[in-house]
Order: sequence, then structure tokens, then C-alpha cells
Amino acid sequence: MEQYEIRTDLALEATETMQCHGSGEIRGVELEEYDVLEDVHITKVKIVTKNAAKIMGKPVGTYITLESPALEEWDEDYHRDISEELAHCIREIMPDMQEEKSVLVIGLGNRDVTADSLGPSTVDQLFITRHMLKEYGKKAYNVEHMHEISSLIPGVMAKTGMETAEIVKGVVTETHPDLLLVIDALAAKNVKRLYRAIQITDTGIHPGSGVGNHRNGLTNASLGIPVIAIGIPMVVNASTIVDCALERLAGKNQKFCDSLEYFRNSEDTQLHNMYVTAKNIDETTKRLSYTLSEAINIALDMED
Amino acid sequence: MEQYEIRTDLALEATETMQCHGSGEIRGVELEEYDVLEDVHITKVKIVTKNAAKIMGKPVGTYITLESPALEEWDEDYHRDISEELAHCIREIMPDMQEEKSVLVIGLGNRDVTADSLGPSTVDQLFITRHMLKEYGKKAYNVEHMHEISSLIPGVMAKTGMETAEIVKGVVTETHPDLLLVIDALAAKNVKRLYRAIQITDTGIHPGSGVGNHRNGLTNASLGIPVIAIGIPMVVNASTIVDCALERLAGKNQKFCDSLEYFRNSEDTQLHNMYVTAKNIDETTKRLSYTLSEAINIALDMED
Amino acid sequence: MEQYEIRTDLALEATETMQCHGSGEIRGVELEEYDVLEDVHITKVKIVTKNAAKIMGKPVGTYITLESPALEEWDEDYHRDISEELAHCIREIMPDMQEEKSVLVIGLGNRDVTADSLGPSTVDQLFITRHMLKEYGKKAYNVEHMHEISSLIPGVMAKTGMETAEIVKGVVTETHPDLLLVIDALAAKNVKRLYRAIQITDTGIHPGSGVGNHRNGLTNASLGIPVIAIGIPMVVNASTIVDCALERLAGKNQKFCDSLEYFRNSEDTQLHNMYVTAKNIDETTKRLSYTLSEAINIALDMED
Amino acid sequence: MEQYEIRTDLALEATETMQCHGSGEIRGVELEEYDVLEDVHITKVKIVTKNAAKIMGKPVGTYITLESPALEEWDEDYHRDISEELAHCIREIMPDMQEEKSVLVIGLGNRDVTADSLGPSTVDQLFITRHMLKEYGKKAYNVEHMHEISSLIPGVMAKTGMETAEIVKGVVTETHPDLLLVIDALAAKNVKRLYRAIQITDTGIHPGSGVGNHRNGLTNASLGIPVIAIGIPMVVNASTIVDCALERLAGKNQKFCDSLEYFRNSEDTQLHNMYVTAKNIDETTKRLSYTLSEAINIALDMED
Repeated sequence: MEQYEIRTDLALEATETMQCHGSGEIRGVELEEYDVLEDVHITKVKIVTKNAAKIMGKPVGTYITLESPALEEWDEDYHRDISEELAHCIREIMPDMQEEKSVLVIGLGNRDVTADSLGPSTVDQLFITRHMLKEYGKKAYNVEHMHEISSLIPGVMAKTGMETAEIVKGVVTETHPDLLLVIDALAAKNVKRLYRAIQITDTGIHPGSGVGNHRNGLTNASLGIPVIAIGIPMVVNASTIVDCALERLAGKNQKFCDSLEYFRNSEDTQLHNMYVTAKNIDETTKRLSYTLSEAINIALDMED
Repeated sequence: MEQYEIRTDLALEATETMQCHGSGEIRGVELEEYDVLEDVHITKVKIVTKNAAKIMGKPVGTYITLESPALEEWDEDYHRDISEELAHCIREIMPDMQEEKSVLVIGLGNRDVTADSLGPSTVDQLFITRHMLKEYGKKAYNVEHMHEISSLIPGVMAKTGMETAEIVKGVVTETHPDLLLVIDALAAKNVKRLYRAIQITDTGIHPGSGVGNHRNGLTNASLGIPVIAIGIPMVVNASTIVDCALERLAGKNQKFCDSLEYFRNSEDTQLHNMYVTAKNIDETTKRLSYTLSEAINIALDMED
Repeated sequence: MEQYEIRTDLALEATETMQCHGSGEIRGVELEEYDVLEDVHITKVKIVTKNAAKIMGKPVGTYITLESPALEEWDEDYHRDISEELAHCIREIMPDMQEEKSVLVIGLGNRDVTADSLGPSTVDQLFITRHMLKEYGKKAYNVEHMHEISSLIPGVMAKTGMETAEIVKGVVTETHPDLLLVIDALAAKNVKRLYRAIQITDTGIHPGSGVGNHRNGLTNASLGIPVIAIGIPMVVNASTIVDCALERLAGKNQKFCDSLEYFRNSEDTQLHNMYVTAKNIDETTKRLSYTLSEAINIALDMED
Repeated sequence: MEQYEIRTDLALEATETMQCHGSGEIRGVELEEYDVLEDVHITKVKIVTKNAAKIMGKPVGTYITLESPALEEWDEDYHRDISEELAHCIREIMPDMQEEKSVLVIGLGNRDVTADSLGPSTVDQLFITRHMLKEYGKKAYNVEHMHEISSLIPGVMAKTGMETAEIVKGVVTETHPDLLLVIDALAAKNVKRLYRAIQITDTGIHPGSGVGNHRNGLTNASLGIPVIAIGIPMVVNASTIVDCALERLAGKNQKFCDSLEYFRNSEDTQLHNMYVTAKNIDETTKRLSYTLSEAINIALDMED
């Protein structure tokens, strides 16, 4: 059943779907898993070959996913622990940052749509240093080494009339950062991943992915600098949960498997543009954006 | 298949479910339907007997539902037309308002959760007169007749520590309104009704219904004055869309109908507390609350 | 110069004005001052006689003011220290709370007007227990003793059409709390007190005071239970800063003192309804409401 | 008394101050005034010579100011009339727009600080066409001629770490607009101008002006395309109202004029970073941004 389109931004879920459809180990995909802290599960997916990329529907590169049910609950101390763990993952995927670098962090998404506001909210809480370092030097912070951090919330195309890629490219050309971090809300396939997984990848952002699909690609190839994308699944397409249920049902009743495809399509049509979300999404977004911003602040702190 | 629990706040959908399950005309339920304007459909459901109330899972009383795909789109002029049509429906269900009355409008729900903020947002935009009439009389407005309008946004139990019913009862006892209007976000069964139907009923609000279940009943019986509830479906439970798909599937493949029930329950568990919503819910809520507030303002205007 | 009207909600400033006008020690007013922590100054003003109340323009009772420049800056740890110090002050002024009590906290003001939103923002962050204790008892929290905390954000009269006092009275009658805490934004006379002073008083709230003047009195006399009011100066009337400058100038040039009064009145007219505020008021309000909510949570915690 | 620094972004007020200090007609400054509608006053200030620019503290160019007390009140129909009048003024100052042009509108300021959010709020409500025209052509709107409108809310330097000018320059270089419109909150000298005046100028934005001072210049010289700035006074510096009162007082008591300067400075110090604003600024900003966005939408509509 390879015809099942994978509606997920998580490489981890793409892997699962492949395995689930009997592919077992996928050639050209390297998997590594381990647990940290109390209940934090980390999965590294490396897509190594172009063929694997095609099968997975995800570009060649590294995808680290940190999963924890604790992400959805509120324990201030534990969130700090998770932020630190997340900072490790970000550092692992970042290029060498031993020397002082200039980093531009982009918050994608629409700040007026709760599920899509993760990027803007995260960026709002970052520790920004570039303007101070430019004006007063490192004595402003009384430190020996410090990265120049800047940030931008470009807005969505429906509101700006511009591709996000145009805006970011212009600003990159003008301010010459060494590295781009991009924060975005993702779509998952499985509701159990909602608000409970954080994906970090060195592949950047590709057209058509993400909740709002609000942009062209932001990649090393298009911008000329490394692009690291960090995201959390904030929605599941409504049609996905129906599809998944039908798929599981088909697994159990092989005989009517064929009639399912047609039925599935007619069901999905009316669920177009509908999303599955938890009721307390406003609070959850606030909390996750804080955890994310803390992780980035730690990862970019040279004294840490 | 009467065992299918009806997860909807709309009497109209309860009726449909009954009919759909082969009940045809339901004894003790009177139905009337007609179209107005371009594409506005109005349905009146009267539950007349206690037995019908039990079958329908809704109290005895009148339920008027105004449905229009235009509600979800934005055409300022047409929304005004709908507001006026809605005002007619509200007036039809209100007790005699020929003489000056005192009306308290309650906005139920959590203003910090978008899908649940319909009540607070609507009430925020009402034309409030009570304090001016008390202080300066009708000359403040240069009119001959005017109702005393007041409003309250009680908040949700998790934030107040009090049942909404306690707060409302206290305020009713202190300020003696003649009529209570209650605005609330509803849950629908069918995604096609999301943001596209408005229900007005003289039965008030009953425990356990509504998006947030944030209150005890607000009824004529509990408060001693007529209570009219106005609501719009803002969410569909995620499990409902899976159930509906499975139900439709079962209709087509009678043989595996039995195994479906068990499967359904296991699917539903993981969708607990998940809701289906459209992506642009923030904007939709803003618009619908405006249309609703206009309708109430018109319905309560004695000069109109 | 008793004709100088005292436009301040702070008893401390009323005292200063008196002293400043040569009254020195004021009969019937007891003053006590001390410092705690690094730079926190605490002043206790007790107005003991009716005559002193008349002169001061404030009711008989106790007013504790905690002042610190640190309140306006952001140091998370130090704000925690201040919250604890503030909790001491609140406990000092509260009636005996050895036994379990029911406490209703009211957040006065308009949540849509930044300077007036201190009350609603503070109440939004409180630890509310009443509904859980009513439903599950103390085992819900695994504690031996716990106060029943509830809260209400009544809204402002222009939006509700009701006096805040009517709403509060109704809810008090219905839910029978033992104690009322009322949080409100205050007006100061001196800009140096903006965001830097917290006043706690057992006199409750009196008509005409406060930023928005949005309510009748909330006092022990009107409600039948102790009422403690906690507030922070969030605005200074614009005319006040002109008056203060002119007053200081007059002190230095006695001869044209007489012509000043007429001039002052004409200046003040155009400043009617204008307020002096700092640019970062949105952030300041957020921070102060957090510090205040923490203090109240500590003061009402029986295990602490 | 030329030493009086002019703390205003309005050329109109700079003119008044000059005249007020006895300069009468100012060489190199052309003034024209007329009334439209019921109570809308329009003033055109043309600064023609470099010398006049130096005296006025404003660059050479044209400044049109539309003033009306009605701006601060809410009459939907009248605001529409004002929007149309304002659209005339904008068209008058814009370069020839007979042919289709590409226009980028920038909303300066901090959206989280109410008084500074005029620019972002206005831009949020604009009719954006560029992405649709690029994707579907003019048939998307069923029109013959249409400008390409895009917009950007760059954020403030404290949050982005970049000069606004860097961000705008990058985006201009990437997307090649023909014209830049910049919306910003201004500072006035006289409180009577707060929320009641709209200034349009072809001089762009210059460093150090504006409420937040959050940017380098945005001018024809720096960007290579015409830059039109549109702004409304949203704050008056607190020290300004004291200075103005003292100045007026000095005008009446010439003898103590000398001692005033020293006194003034000591008064001003404590008012540093304080602003005068009206209480209902949140609502006022919402309304003004709507009026402004309507005016820009009309001015850029080729069919109108």
C-alpha cells in the first residue's frame, strides 16, 4: 500500500509508516534511538540516499526527534531539563560553533492563528544580542565570547504578499548571518505526537510542508548558509485520523480493503481544511514556545 | 443502532440521527423547515413530550436553527442580513417584550481558548444600557422605550472555582432581570455544521452540554426567569468524525458491523479531548461573534 | 493650602502631601517605616480617627505600602523575594487564617485597557482550589489544611451595565466567602511611585478611587465580610505632574504663588482624561501581575 | 528662546513653535491651510530650503496634516469620509500612479506596546494583492488595472537585533517595489493633537524621530525609491507637557523666565521615558488603524 500518502512533517512518522507497511528496515535510512531523563525518548533518523529520500518523502539529511509526554504537562523544573536536553540535540546538529558566529532565527507562521503561532511566540522570547554587540561590543554583556543573535518574524504570504523565502533571502543578503535557525509548527500523522515531539533537522524548510504551507523553501541550497529547522507538531489533519482508523480497520479485515480507498476519498473531501487539536492549545502553545526558546538560548550561549 | 450516543448540542442533529437510524418521524417531535434570503435554511424542532425528550437526549422545548454556508464567509452586507433574520428568530422565541424589560446576557466559555470564546466575544460587543438608564433615564438615549440591557462574562470553573450557575444565580438575585440570554459555543456532530449553524432555544443551558462543560444548568427552573440559549457549533469531537466515518462504512458493509463497536471504542480513547476545528478559527470566531452581537442588539432594540 | 486636592490612591502619598504642606505630624495618623531585603521600603500608615480620615481623604484603617525600584526591573529571583515579603504584609493585615477559610479574590478593572488590567491579570494567575475541594476534598491536593480559593473578574460598568458592587454582592451572597481580596490598579501622585509601590489595606475599595472609577464601594460595611484591597499605581493623572511642577516652582518663588491657581486650572482642563505612563507598560503589567499573584498564592497557602 | 528643542514629529507643530517664538513667517517654509467636510482641517507645510530645514529640525519636503476632533470619536460613517479625504492627501503626495506599480507598505513599531502598535495594526488590515497577481494575474480580482501591494512588519530592534533599515533594505533589494509607504506612531508636542492629526510626508522616516526611535532612516536617498511616511501622534512626552505649561507661565511672568530653565531641567529628569496618553488608547489605536488602512486601500485602488 505505498499509495498511502504520508501527511506528516515528522521523519520519524514517515519511517514508522514505511515499517508499518511491511517495509521493515528501509535501505538508505539509519535509525538510532535512546532514552534520557525520566521519560524522554530521542530518535535519530538519517536519510542517506536519494532513493531513501524519495521513498520517505523527505530530503536527505539528519532528523532528531525528542519525544516526551511531559512536554504537554506543566512542570517548570522538568521543562528546564527538557530544554537542556533539547539544547544538546540542537548543538549536535549545528555546524561547528566554537568561534563567534552570527545566527538569524526565523519564526514562521501566523501569530494570529494559535496553532500556527509557535514560531513567532518562540522568537519573541529569544535572547537577542546583535544590536548590542554592534553598538557596544562584548563589554555590554561582560563576556569573552558571544554569538550575534538576530531574529525575524516574516509573517505569512496572505498578509505580506511576499513569499517568506523572498523576505528571508533579502534579510540574509543584507545582514550576512553564518547560520539560519527556523522555527515552525508542524503537522503530525498520529495524534499521540501532538505537542509531545520536537524535531530538529539540518534539511531546512521545504515547500508544501508545515501547517500553513506559507512558504517556499528555506534551505542551504537556496540561501547559501546552513539552515536548521526546529518544529513541534501542533495539528493533525482531520482526514488523517479517519484514514488511520480505516487503515487500522483494513489491517484487521483484509477482505473489504479494496472498497476502502474509494470510501476514504469521499470522507476526506468534507474534512478538507479541518484540523484536530486539543482544547487547551492556547496554553500549550505558550508553554512549548517557552521551552523551545529556552533551549535555543542555551544552545547559542557560548559560556554555557 | 440506538446505542449510538449523540454527541451534539444541536437538536437538529439529534433529529437527523434518529431519522438516519430508521426512526423516520419521531413521535413527540414537531419539525418545520423553510428557506429565507438567498441560502439561509431555518429549521424548527419542537420537542413536545417527555418521552421524545428522552429519546432525543434534549429537554422539552423549542429549538430554532438558522443554517447558512455564508456564515463562514465574509460578506459584511450579507452578515447584516443574517443578523436581521437571526433577530427575528430570537424575537420569536423570546417571551413578550412589548413592555420595557430588564435583560441580562451571559457570555459562557473561556475567553483565552479561541473555540470557546464565542460567548465572551459576543457579549463584549453588545449595546449595554442598564447603567445609563439607571443613572440618566431614557433621555440619555433620546428614546421613548428601551430595555435595560446588562451583561456578564462569568469565566470558567477551572479559573473561578465556582460553578457558573452559582455566579449567575447570585447576580440574578441581586439585579432582578426579567430574562436571561446565554451565549455559548456548541459541539456539533457533523463537520459541515461547524461555524454554519446558529441554534436558539428556550430550554436554557443543561449540565454537561457545550464545548467546555463549564457549568451547571442555567434554566427557568433553576433561576426563576425565562432563559434563552444561543449557540454556534465551534468544535466537533475528534472521535465523532471517526465514528461517523465508521458508521457510514458500516451502512455499506453490514457484515462487519458487529466488530465495529469494539474497534470504535479503542480508536476513540486516543482521541479523548481532541477536537476538529478549521484553521482560521480565530478570524471565524471574531466574525461570528460580531454577527451574533448585531442580532441580539437588533432583537432587543424597541425602536426597531 | 488644604485646598490642594490629593489625587492619589496611596495613603502614603496623602501623608506626604500633608507633611509637605507644613502639617508635620498629623494627629490621628500613626506612621511606621522600615527596610527589608536589599532595597525594599515598607511604610505603615494607620489612620486612627475620623478627623484624620477627613484630612487625609482616606477611610480609617491600616495601609501598608511596600516600595522598591526593583519592582520595575526584571530579576526573577528577586521578584520571588519580593513576593514573599509582600505575602508577609498581606498576612499581617488579613484576619486570623489559622483555620480553613473561604476566600474570594476579585480582579477589578478593564482587561482590554493595559493600565487598568492589573486586577484581571493577577486573578488569572491565582491558584484556585474551591471547585476541587468541593468535588474531591483535600485528597485532591494531598494536604491536611487548605483554604477554599475562588475568584471573579466582574468587568467594568460600561461593559456590564451593572455596578461592580452589585455583581460582587450577588456572588458573595450566593457563595458565602469568609474574606474578600480585591486587586486593582491605582493612581499615584508622584511618577516615581509608578509600578514601584504596592499598597495593602483593610479598608476595602471606596467609590471614586482607582484608575477607572468603575465601581461602588466594596467594604466590610457593604458586604458583611472583611475586605482587603491590594493595588499598584499604574497611572498618574497628567494634570498632576503639571500641578506638582507648578507647586514646586511656587515653593521657590512665593510672590507669584497667587496667580498660579488660576493658571493651573486652565492648564489642567486640556489634560483631562490624560494619563502619564511608561512606554513599556504592557510588559510591566504582565510582570507585576505575576509578582502579585505569587504573593497572594503564598499568603493563602496553609502549608507555607 | 531658540534653545527650546522641538520634541514633535509634526512639521505643523514645528512651524507653530517657530511662530510662537516670534519668528512669524519662516523663510523657506510655505504654508497652506483649508477646511474640508464638517470639521476637518488640512495644513500643508512645504520646507523648501536647507536653511529652513535646519531651523525647523525637519528635512526638506512636503508635509500634509489632516486634523479633526472626529478622529478621536467613533462614528463609522464619518470615519469613512475622513478615510476618503485622507486618501486624496496620500494621492496628492504620491508619485504618478497612473500605471501599475508595486507598493511595499511597512508597519513600524512594536505590536506589543499599544501606543507603538499603530503601524503593525494598520498593515494587518491592508488589502494585499502581490501574491495573488503573481500567481493568478489580474483575473484573480476580475479587474483591468491593479497595483501590486505587499507589506512587512519588521519589528523593533530590541527584538530583532537588526536595524529596521537593514530589514527593509534587504526586502526592497529582493522584491523591487516602486514605492514605499511607511506607517508609524508619532510623538506630538501638544496633547490636543493626540489621536487627532494625521501627517503624510514625502520625506520618509529619519533617525531619532518617532515614538520608539526604533530605526535608522528610511528615505529615498537610502533606499533608491520614493518613501512616503504616514503617522498619527500617539504619545506626548511627559516632560513636554510640563515644559509647555512652564513656557506659557513664563510668557505671562517675564521676570522669572531665567530661573525657569534650570528648574525645567530638574523636572524633566524624573519624567524621562514617561508618556502622556489617554485612558482608552487600546480602543483608539484599533479605530485609527482601521481608518488609516481604509485610506491606504482607497488611495491604492486603481478602479476608485
